Amino acid sequence: MTSSLNGINVAALTQFAEGIRQNPSNAEAKFEVHTRWDGQTRSVATVKSYGLRGQSHARDFTIVADEPPELLGENSAPNPQELLMAALNACMTVGYVATAAGMGVTVRSLEIDTTGALDLRGFLGLDNGVNPGYDEIQYTVHIDADGTAEQMEKIHQEVMRTSPNFANFARAIRMVPKLVVNGK
Amino acid sequence: MTSSLNGINVAALTQFAEGIRQNPSNAEAKFEVHTRWDGQTRSVATVKSYGLRGQSHARDFTIVADEPPELLGENSAPNPQELLMAALNACMTVGYVATAAGMGVTVRSLEIDTTGALDLRGFLGLDNGVNPGYDEIQYTVHIDADGTAEQMEKIHQEVMRTSPNFANFARAIRMVPKLVVNGK
Repeated sequence: MTSSLNGINVAALTQFAEGIRQNPSNAEAKFEVHTRWDGQTRSVATVKSYGLRGQSHARDFTIVADEPPELLGENSAPNPQELLMAALNACMTVGYVATAAGMGVTVRSLEIDTTGALDLRGFLGLDNGVNPGYDEIQYTVHIDADGTAEQMEKIHQEVMRTSPNFANFARAIRMVPKLVVNGK
Repeated sequence: MTSSLNGINVAALTQFAEGIRQNPSNAEAKFEVHTRWDGQTRSVATVKSYGLRGQSHARDFTIVADEPPELLGENSAPNPQELLMAALNACMTVGYVATAAGMGVTVRSLEIDTTGALDLRGFLGLDNGVNPGYDEIQYTVHIDADGTAEQMEKIHQEVMRTSPNFANFARAIRMVPKLVVNGK
């Protein structure tokens, strides 16, 4: 028996899950991003570490964002809305292929098209009754795989039930801000 | 009088807002991301266009995501959680510098540190009572600027009121999925 399917090491995933089942205090994954304004509408985010089971793991990634010219930027990078949707799709992608692997289903290809519309009266502060964010996000998952229709529907439901970023879109998150002005 | 502050063309921003105020049917900004699974936990998102006031504007960006080895990936890119936080920070960054510019406040520097913890029992499907996403996101905004304490607090409140991605975190979004299996 091979322990890998869809590139996912199923034996390692099962062992990882079993370790957390036996000791739920190991279940925390902590993510941290530091962002620096780079002038105009451009920002550079750096990722230096993340925490898993209380242990810090070094990372070294940069994520640049900017706005297109119509939204007052220089178009040097994807904008915050595109990064947000990419984050959703990336998370669901992992969910589909890992869930399928766990069920013995081979995924041949997977693509996700995601779209959402903002009402800019919210961002521009023109109307307090307008949500500045998305009321609704539409996405289509194109998956080629060898599962039965029932298995594919089960995988689809499982991703909606367990994907962290699906939950982050579908649920309200408590925001805890702190403002430091001129070092104080 | 200069029309640009914090790199933001205040005259253009005012004109843009005025155009939308006069004709709210121009307020829609539509974003679209296409994601393709690239094996294992890696995905590649492409951005080809966005829509503003019913007009399509060409884009050409790629956003890659992967997971670290402990989460079964190859560590080739930031992970979905880091992209999500980068999207939040990038959006709020635009909000702070544009709002400050509109109030005549010069921003010298702006940094945002954001952190959140997942309980992986949610993602692993081990406990239906566990939220797979973030219950809470903490962030600290370090801003150096020439505004009064009252102005800085007003800018801070305004960003929470008008930032699209702050709203996308703080509010639940209606998710409208479609599943296409083997082309059907």
